[in-house]
Amino acid sequence: MNTPSSLEDLIKALRCLPGVGPKSAQRMAYHLLQRDRSGASHLAHALDHAVGSVKHCSKCNNFSEDDVCALCRSERRETDLLCVVEMPSDMLMMEQAQCYRGMYFVLMGRLSPLDGVGARELPLGRLVERAQELACEVILATNFTVEGEATAHYLGTLLRAQGIKVSRIARGLPVGGELEHVDSGTLAQAVLERRVMTE
Amino acid sequence: MNTPSSLEDLIKALRCLPGVGPKSAQRMAYHLLQRDRSGASHLAHALDHAVGSVKHCSKCNNFSEDDVCALCRSERRETDLLCVVEMPSDMLMMEQAQCYRGMYFVLMGRLSPLDGVGARELPLGRLVERAQELACEVILATNFTVEGEATAHYLGTLLRAQGIKVSRIARGLPVGGELEHVDSGTLAQAVLERRVMTE
Repeated sequence: MNTPSSLEDLIKALRCLPGVGPKSAQRMAYHLLQRDRSGASHLAHALDHAVGSVKHCSKCNNFSEDDVCALCRSERRETDLLCVVEMPSDMLMMEQAQCYRGMYFVLMGRLSPLDGVGARELPLGRLVERAQELACEVILATNFTVEGEATAHYLGTLLRAQGIKVSRIARGLPVGGELEHVDSGTLAQAVLERRVMTE
Repeated sequence: MNTPSSLEDLIKALRCLPGVGPKSAQRMAYHLLQRDRSGASHLAHALDHAVGSVKHCSKCNNFSEDDVCALCRSERRETDLLCVVEMPSDMLMMEQAQCYRGMYFVLMGRLSPLDGVGARELPLGRLVERAQELACEVILATNFTVEGEATAHYLGTLLRAQGIKVSRIARGLPVGGELEHVDSGTLAQAVLERRVMTE
């Protein structure tokens, strides 16, 4: 009854953030209005700016402000390797591990029927197109979770049907682990030990 | 290197939310841009609107869009009781418990030297003024945490020095507990069993 409507709207709007429930949203709104109004204004501006200017690179599907991102434009990358990752954070981990100089394709997700993400929700047509364009080996670097493995299996079948050579980074990562949280050494080892997918 | 600057700005801006570290901020930004752009735009608008329109009630110091909030304007409240709470969420809990029909004063914080919140950071002058204006009993309903107890002790001394009758809600709440998380029955009991503060 005694909560201003604009404050209620803000609490509701904060719920769109992943992992934020009603209590957290309330705490965030109080914090912003009481202690950090300039932060709130800055966040509003950053949201608007990002929504307006961030799109997807037409080559690698990563977030980008340009039609083709800096990495895909770079002349210093090897074009005979295409590494498929789930999220941009996985790609950042690969870059930090400094074990790979090829191109990337970012799925922006994984096959996950329980969350309503099927093959149609992923940009698989564009992945096949890009792999054919580069005529290269595709390295599948999706996570070693159940969904990531299923995605790798699906992509392997799909790409091999097009005559494309497909490999999977080695299971040097712990089973159930995620690229985002692994140390660079383990990740580099897994890239080195990638194996050709046959069946 | 390959993260668009507007995406990096958004990740940085999300860090202003309490309890959000670098990994959570990244996950939130990806989620908003990949799956919920309309939610992001709505959040930006809600932030701007709230920052622009939410201020503090001149009577009770609660968040309000008006100079005096609906509760303070209401003719149906008893004006011989003034309940002091830390946060608006505590006041909502009091209202939900339906055990209290008096007025409120919201501190919007607590004494907490470790967080840099001393007596000067709380609107204590306005609290004393309001208590004198109503010529009423003041019920201290700050949390039973260390900071809340210290705040109650400080306020008790301050208000009694002005000849104001001060009481504290009963320690029916578990020690270390917070109003926000207690059940209505316990809270109602604590209001009933409040005790006059003498020394």
